[in-house]
Amino acid sequence: MTNARRIIIIGCGAGGGTSAQFARKTDRTASITIFEKGKYPQYSKCGLPYAIAGTVPTFHDLIEFSEDWFKKEHIEVHLETSVENIDMQHQRLIAKKGSERIEKEFDSLILATGAIPWIPPIKNIQKNGQLLQGISILRTIDDGEHILSQIKKGRKATIIGAGLIGLEMADTLHTKGMNVTVVEALPAILANTLDEDMSEPVEQVLQQKISILTNHLAIQVKENHGSIAALTIKNNITGEEKKIETDLLIIATGTKPETSLAKTIGCKIGKTHGIQVNGKSETTVKNVYAVGDCTEYKDFVTNEPLCIGLGSIVVRQGIAAGTNAAGGTYSLPPGVLLTRTSEFFGMEIAAVGPVKQEVKNLQLVTGKYKGFSKPEYFPGKDSITMKVGADEETRRIVSAQAVGSNAAQRINTLASAVLSKMTIDEFRKLETAYAPPIAPTLDALTLACDVVALKLTRKRREP
Amino acid sequence: MTNARRIIIIGCGAGGGTSAQFARKTDRTASITIFEKGKYPQYSKCGLPYAIAGTVPTFHDLIEFSEDWFKKEHIEVHLETSVENIDMQHQRLIAKKGSERIEKEFDSLILATGAIPWIPPIKNIQKNGQLLQGISILRTIDDGEHILSQIKKGRKATIIGAGLIGLEMADTLHTKGMNVTVVEALPAILANTLDEDMSEPVEQVLQQKISILTNHLAIQVKENHGSIAALTIKNNITGEEKKIETDLLIIATGTKPETSLAKTIGCKIGKTHGIQVNGKSETTVKNVYAVGDCTEYKDFVTNEPLCIGLGSIVVRQGIAAGTNAAGGTYSLPPGVLLTRTSEFFGMEIAAVGPVKQEVKNLQLVTGKYKGFSKPEYFPGKDSITMKVGADEETRRIVSAQAVGSNAAQRINTLASAVLSKMTIDEFRKLETAYAPPIAPTLDALTLACDVVALKLTRKRREP
Repeated sequence: MTNARRIIIIGCGAGGGTSAQFARKTDRTASITIFEKGKYPQYSKCGLPYAIAGTVPTFHDLIEFSEDWFKKEHIEVHLETSVENIDMQHQRLIAKKGSERIEKEFDSLILATGAIPWIPPIKNIQKNGQLLQGISILRTIDDGEHILSQIKKGRKATIIGAGLIGLEMADTLHTKGMNVTVVEALPAILANTLDEDMSEPVEQVLQQKISILTNHLAIQVKENHGSIAALTIKNNITGEEKKIETDLLIIATGTKPETSLAKTIGCKIGKTHGIQVNGKSETTVKNVYAVGDCTEYKDFVTNEPLCIGLGSIVVRQGIAAGTNAAGGTYSLPPGVLLTRTSEFFGMEIAAVGPVKQEVKNLQLVTGKYKGFSKPEYFPGKDSITMKVGADEETRRIVSAQAVGSNAAQRINTLASAVLSKMTIDEFRKLETAYAPPIAPTLDALTLACDVVALKLTRKRREP
Repeated sequence: MTNARRIIIIGCGAGGGTSAQFARKTDRTASITIFEKGKYPQYSKCGLPYAIAGTVPTFHDLIEFSEDWFKKEHIEVHLETSVENIDMQHQRLIAKKGSERIEKEFDSLILATGAIPWIPPIKNIQKNGQLLQGISILRTIDDGEHILSQIKKGRKATIIGAGLIGLEMADTLHTKGMNVTVVEALPAILANTLDEDMSEPVEQVLQQKISILTNHLAIQVKENHGSIAALTIKNNITGEEKKIETDLLIIATGTKPETSLAKTIGCKIGKTHGIQVNGKSETTVKNVYAVGDCTEYKDFVTNEPLCIGLGSIVVRQGIAAGTNAAGGTYSLPPGVLLTRTSEFFGMEIAAVGPVKQEVKNLQLVTGKYKGFSKPEYFPGKDSITMKVGADEETRRIVSAQAVGSNAAQRINTLASAVLSKMTIDEFRKLETAYAPPIAPTLDALTLACDVVALKLTRKRREP
């Protein structure tokens, strides 16, 4: 195996692991090495709330590719190993595993360094550089195990951030019998996924089971013998402060890209603070790729740079980086669609494309339709609300949101329309599958588009 | 309301009813009249198996638009009325309702005369021009009521035809406690929906609950006091004959378009024996439209003429005919996708585009993937098998089939790809929605396309 291609990957999350997998598929003889700071090989971070809930029996079940699996694929994985230095001139890096020093040369380097949680500026949240006992982020299996150890039926839990992860955790803690409060600084929940008119009915359902306080900032923690005892929050609008007792505080306010190594080798960092990559997952430095939560790529619709924080995109970037680094060819579409979904308190939500506030470079016209998963006469039908957005000038479909029955699969159909740049006029005539126990003759999928088309026609008539 | 537009519709099924509805939406002052031979206004024919099963409580529940509804919309509906004569020169028709004679002029005429069941040539199936007691087709509420009256737990039922309706009825009769046998002349079940490699696993599941005899022709009925007693079937391959005792025989062997009136006014009839229509639902005769099961339109992929037999398409043709007849503009895509689905014995199946045997004008390359509805580690995941077909030369996606979890909604996503003429290379990079309780990071939707892409690459390499 002399002259075999040498690929080094930093990070063994979904991005790094997938890169390794596709590098191996592309080049059976390449030398592939992964350095990972943490204790575990590739596991599902998105699965953590479900392992805490017990739906997934153990945290160990979240490991998607084991050390043995990588061994069988002749991929060298170094866990609990941090990369100390990258020397681009000699394409060589130095890593440390305990007291051991590893030096290794590469032809291609793939950065999959992920992201670190963003901790909002809350007074007294830390003591000696550590979060107080009872306060946790949710990023790793260790975090998950810590949270699980703090869960006690009947006690109080507070979550900061009403995004997807915050609400998934709210469901988990509620299921575990805790009294849950969610504190959100913005005026509405799920602000990155749904427009307010779509998230409001979701919030109403949630308020029946947990307490959600929107327009509230967390400002101060009260300590009791090293543990959290209460959280002071402040109403953004009235300025009123309120203290809520809490035994467990989970911070789910998003992440920031981990780019320290990338900066040392001169990778261009974008305005979202992620490593700039193109559709081949190449950074601005030759032979260096980057994938996943540490990267910035553009939005397919708005062309604006975006920080990548979705497992589905991370994996696709990994396919591109691994394939290209190993001598193959793989390009992603010119931008990400941000197809996203989640489920909590029995409700499925999904979206594709930007939410309303993010659309600036085009004239968004939206249509909404509330229908059912089956014909009106059929028992057991579930409700589904679809909202579709199109650009007034080009009539292209640019976004969609769904709450209810099979929201995710319905959004996939609209994602396909966004990707192929279909107009509202073409897509609304799509023949959807119909059978009484499965779907109505006309699905909310296209009926929401009829509303958009009608609005566009009326607009055209206006003087 | 002098000089109001006069629209007459013949037939108040889904096609006729929808035409009336959209004519009214388009022109609030038009005079709209429907003549319907049967006893009921627009009801769901596709819902009949579920009303027989009792899932839908009564047959009356299947009525989607009542006489009152039409009255409120100022649409005149004449039930139990047959059109005797159409005089195109004076744009006038004569109908008969019992002894009453109705004469009416029109500006536009919409034919929605539907289809009649095709009864295979089986000896002794009729007596005095009537099917024997215990033998039934399934086309109307009356048929449904007749079948329901014949169902008795522990007795034997035979169904001729293993298409969607045949298997839906097999499920219904099995649920009702009957011993069910399905006789199919073709080598495989569901031949119009799935390729044999996709239908075979479905058949295996069904064989555990009912008896399916493929490659068998029904040739003769044995009578006992005016009722059916047994059916003789013949093996297509060995020629062997076999008599099966049966108390109930349901014929589900398809339909033929009802075009007798259309022929009298010179509408061109296509080679499938349906009335030829274009994307506006216009026939070849001026001011005459046709919709639904009596029509022939072309396949979007093969351009071959097709008889329309899907409720979803019928409704869309109705939208076109009603809108256009009332002075609006509505065009359907240049061909039908045949997006179709059904569910029986707990299995969901769906397809879009032609099955393998129907593809003649292009070089079909298919890929299949069997995956899960959720990540591998997630409990409660269901299986999903997807098969996707592309044209080798253009790499366009032309067909897809699915069996399993959310088959219908997954097929809708591929229907969107077929309609927008996406290539396998574009579509396989579609970002699908991912969340552990809902879908895996890479869905069978696109993984099946990766298989197609791989096959296409290998073919290109071959000498």
